[in-house]
Amino acid sequence: MKVEPIKVRRGIKVSEIIESFSFSAFNARRLAESAKLWKKMVEERAFVFLTLAGAMIPAGMREVVKDLLENELVNSLVLTGANLVHEICEALGFKHEIGDTNVSDVELAESDLNRIYDVFIPTSSFIAVEEFLGDIFRDLEGNFSSSELVRLIGSRLENSFLRIAFDKKIPIFCPTFHDSIAGLHLALYGKKLVLDYRKDIFEILDLCSQKRKMGIVIVGGGVPKNFALQAMLLSDGFDYAIQITTDSPQFGGLSGATLEEAKSWCKLKKDAKAVTVYCDATIALPLICSYLIDNKLSYSKQI
Amino acid sequence: MKVEPIKVRRGIKVSEIIESFSFSAFNARRLAESAKLWKKMVEERAFVFLTLAGAMIPAGMREVVKDLLENELVNSLVLTGANLVHEICEALGFKHEIGDTNVSDVELAESDLNRIYDVFIPTSSFIAVEEFLGDIFRDLEGNFSSSELVRLIGSRLENSFLRIAFDKKIPIFCPTFHDSIAGLHLALYGKKLVLDYRKDIFEILDLCSQKRKMGIVIVGGGVPKNFALQAMLLSDGFDYAIQITTDSPQFGGLSGATLEEAKSWCKLKKDAKAVTVYCDATIALPLICSYLIDNKLSYSKQI
Amino acid sequence: MKVEPIKVRRGIKVSEIIESFSFSAFNARRLAESAKLWKKMVEERAFVFLTLAGAMIPAGMREVVKDLLENELVNSLVLTGANLVHEICEALGFKHEIGDTNVSDVELAESDLNRIYDVFIPTSSFIAVEEFLGDIFRDLEGNFSSSELVRLIGSRLENSFLRIAFDKKIPIFCPTFHDSIAGLHLALYGKKLVLDYRKDIFEILDLCSQKRKMGIVIVGGGVPKNFALQAMLLSDGFDYAIQITTDSPQFGGLSGATLEEAKSWCKLKKDAKAVTVYCDATIALPLICSYLIDNKLSYSKQI
Amino acid sequence: MKVEPIKVRRGIKVSEIIESFSFSAFNARRLAESAKLWKKMVEERAFVFLTLAGAMIPAGMREVVKDLLENELVNSLVLTGANLVHEICEALGFKHEIGDTNVSDVELAESDLNRIYDVFIPTSSFIAVEEFLGDIFRDLEGNFSSSELVRLIGSRLENSFLRIAFDKKIPIFCPTFHDSIAGLHLALYGKKLVLDYRKDIFEILDLCSQKRKMGIVIVGGGVPKNFALQAMLLSDGFDYAIQITTDSPQFGGLSGATLEEAKSWCKLKKDAKAVTVYCDATIALPLICSYLIDNKLSYSKQI
Repeated sequence: MKVEPIKVRRGIKVSEIIESFSFSAFNARRLAESAKLWKKMVEERAFVFLTLAGAMIPAGMREVVKDLLENELVNSLVLTGANLVHEICEALGFKHEIGDTNVSDVELAESDLNRIYDVFIPTSSFIAVEEFLGDIFRDLEGNFSSSELVRLIGSRLENSFLRIAFDKKIPIFCPTFHDSIAGLHLALYGKKLVLDYRKDIFEILDLCSQKRKMGIVIVGGGVPKNFALQAMLLSDGFDYAIQITTDSPQFGGLSGATLEEAKSWCKLKKDAKAVTVYCDATIALPLICSYLIDNKLSYSKQI
Repeated sequence: MKVEPIKVRRGIKVSEIIESFSFSAFNARRLAESAKLWKKMVEERAFVFLTLAGAMIPAGMREVVKDLLENELVNSLVLTGANLVHEICEALGFKHEIGDTNVSDVELAESDLNRIYDVFIPTSSFIAVEEFLGDIFRDLEGNFSSSELVRLIGSRLENSFLRIAFDKKIPIFCPTFHDSIAGLHLALYGKKLVLDYRKDIFEILDLCSQKRKMGIVIVGGGVPKNFALQAMLLSDGFDYAIQITTDSPQFGGLSGATLEEAKSWCKLKKDAKAVTVYCDATIALPLICSYLIDNKLSYSKQI
Repeated sequence: MKVEPIKVRRGIKVSEIIESFSFSAFNARRLAESAKLWKKMVEERAFVFLTLAGAMIPAGMREVVKDLLENELVNSLVLTGANLVHEICEALGFKHEIGDTNVSDVELAESDLNRIYDVFIPTSSFIAVEEFLGDIFRDLEGNFSSSELVRLIGSRLENSFLRIAFDKKIPIFCPTFHDSIAGLHLALYGKKLVLDYRKDIFEILDLCSQKRKMGIVIVGGGVPKNFALQAMLLSDGFDYAIQITTDSPQFGGLSGATLEEAKSWCKLKKDAKAVTVYCDATIALPLICSYLIDNKLSYSKQI
Repeated sequence: MKVEPIKVRRGIKVSEIIESFSFSAFNARRLAESAKLWKKMVEERAFVFLTLAGAMIPAGMREVVKDLLENELVNSLVLTGANLVHEICEALGFKHEIGDTNVSDVELAESDLNRIYDVFIPTSSFIAVEEFLGDIFRDLEGNFSSSELVRLIGSRLENSFLRIAFDKKIPIFCPTFHDSIAGLHLALYGKKLVLDYRKDIFEILDLCSQKRKMGIVIVGGGVPKNFALQAMLLSDGFDYAIQITTDSPQFGGLSGATLEEAKSWCKLKKDAKAVTVYCDATIALPLICSYLIDNKLSYSKQI
């Protein structure tokens, strides 16, 4: 097969340019391959995990995540505590601010602004989160999985993908709930409450042992990547895997580890189809999501 | 200003999603900023250099480069010898092949296939280049700048951005002409020919001293980046600069050096507007090019 | 101050070459700065956290960690579940194997070998870990922090830095205990046992509120980095911070986030001294450890 | 073979810690492998090219380069114009300054300081270079290869590895001579002088066709990497290759390209031994150089 130069033209759609990427090279080609693989997963009614690390919500990805859940392009979400907290901020009406990297962080601290690369978030929004979560945590008694807590949180919010997930009964795991501001709030207010990840483990093990095609889309590595992959150690391995990352394999870390490596652990099946795209997910994920939505007509009837 | 979540929808155009990136963060925002800055350069009739390193032509970027030249979104090109050679291959009808990274390079060598990451190119195409360039070089006598050689090469090709540049009198510099297969051919066949970069230096110094706004779009660093930037040491510095790179600053190399650093050298003006996008150019460049083409109506009358 | 070229000579010691790095540039200089900053922390009797992400134990760092604990160069350790599991493997007598990256992961899977970049670990070693941990977990009843579990584990091992930590009462936190093979074992065997990170949070909050200088050495980011840093949100911030990472800031992720950014969150004090070294920790950490050990004579009397 | 944990101890020598790296993993192991491979090259009296890109001289590597030449651990050098210019600065008595990255580049420009990441160089030193080179270039008439020009430059300096190379007749190629401040000076003052890389090409082709083992040590990629590798297209390929880089393969650029890929081009022999170390060369190169110097006794008699 030959490389076909990418062609752009006036009014070109995202889904069209991604088609054009298919016969190019490097990460443009991989972007196209991953979009097509995700489409295939949905067409084959695979159960698809989306794992989300990195500051995706502060960076403006919440509508994309919402679209993915609403359009049933994702069947379960695994996210970091930080993304959960920042989604709660937004759902409560607090906005992240467009910032800069060329600033004095000491001055930011004095202005009660917290920096995430080129995004600022005022400390006041975390106070609102504290009130919101404090109310929830104070009333709870007993052992809760992170997914149960996220469900409860989602049930109390409007305008959030957490609510969509609640309404649609889409399980959301948060295996670093405790490693976030929400975790501090849980420690302070959840006096009769135990965050019990054992329950999460059994819940995700069940999801991983379904008798259907299993897929995973990994954004940014971290604990969400490992938590979903390791759940396959007791099952048959994923059939499909996509990884969107800016980490490299050559330093031996989990986030940069190749999907091939995951085959040695049997986290992916031997013949699993897998694509890694080396690209900032703030660029890659909305592009792929657009492609999926544009292509949905063709398979929506099956679903 | 607030971060606005990126919104996708069915049928969204590339230029629209880039608009949506404007109020996000990280490299999605920078991609939007760079697209807008390039648009501004064109609107202000700045003289725009495009520097091109990395295996852009093998990766399928030749139509994008062609569009940029044809639409006068670029006024001068600085490219590597490798990109020149691979463009000649394509123009002569030889295609790059879609390959893989998970291969035996020894077997490839035995099949006369040369690998560039996930692209293969048969050795036979270089033999055709050798014939083509041998014919040109044998006849030439005297001192030639790389830009003169590229003009001559362009004049003998159809279906190439080199020909567009020839027709439109767009200067193309190739400061690593000698560091490529074309350079080997020049050594072998250009017995009465001297590749004299002194002439290139004077030519680019002249271009850099024009009394108009000056802009630069740097793809991938390397000699093309430095060759264009250093030409400003004797002039006033660029007014606008865009850098699309996957290199990081923290290792001190030129390719990863920030555009801020270039201000200390006066290669950029003190108040120059500058944006760096950390993204594989195979993804970023076609997206930005689409944005520019979609937005051209608004300023085409001025040009 | 001038750059002084690095000078090597026959028989040069690690501590000497690091001194020589002090007046160089880029990451060699930062390596020297971080070694000196760590030395200063110890001299000032700061309480020093070491956070450990990435596959450090499979890569052969267990003796270095042991030395750091034995020599009291570290006062508390925060590590990933994976590092904990692989340390247990080694302590139980199972060795990691020197592997390669250019292999068939499918064949490895068929040989019951699991790959971590260029290291292999046989599945049999995990079975031994399962027996070892199963025995511990079956007997436990009630709520345990990860640090209590690690203490118990350490008490049952010889030849492990976990044992050293037990003997010396050095707290070790494992905030991703559940996100590891040990977490699966806990789920399977710890039927009356709850892993309660709330207890870890209170314990680390206490450590962070000590009235003494506070320092942190971050290896590789991840949850260990955030878990230790966020504990300072309720205290005054770290006085000293070192980060050894191969992640870059420009993608907005936590692991690559600069230590300056942490100041905006008040996780570091305004005037905190902070150094980031961009280097594979398998190289940087043993070098720095050698420097510290060589320099210990000068401050050992104070301790 | 088993992973053996890296062991440090009081007074450990660089050459000892590198031995200890041999049985670790990731880039520590690769550092050891590359040191041993270089030792093997010298022991087998291979002809060794060292290619040098990145701001190695500003970063304090000139004594290391000198040691490598003086100890005959390198038989030919290929460097960038920038490294040449900065070496001339140092040889003329101008020192690079220890700077910072957290500065105003506009203020630096106003203070006539030019920044290279965390190193500053005053503009005055370039004026001295201009005088020095102007004197040389004004007198020259005819066609000169870069290696001839570097030889002439070396003959007029004391206290420089350029002088060592001159004295020892070690060829130094500078295939980006024109892409540097020295290139601008050549354009301005060398009116009767032509920099003729055709001569360099023939000279390096001759070196590459020697009937002995051929080795290459690539620091940082760029034109020096390609210029030396492509010279093997007309010969049999390198027997040994070491690459010290911070670039990754996944973006398709030449600097990050693997040494395996070079085998498909026959730039390396099929059975060539090759190691890539992913590490800032300011750290890796002095360490490896120390190892070589410590190990020289054992093979010095053979030479």
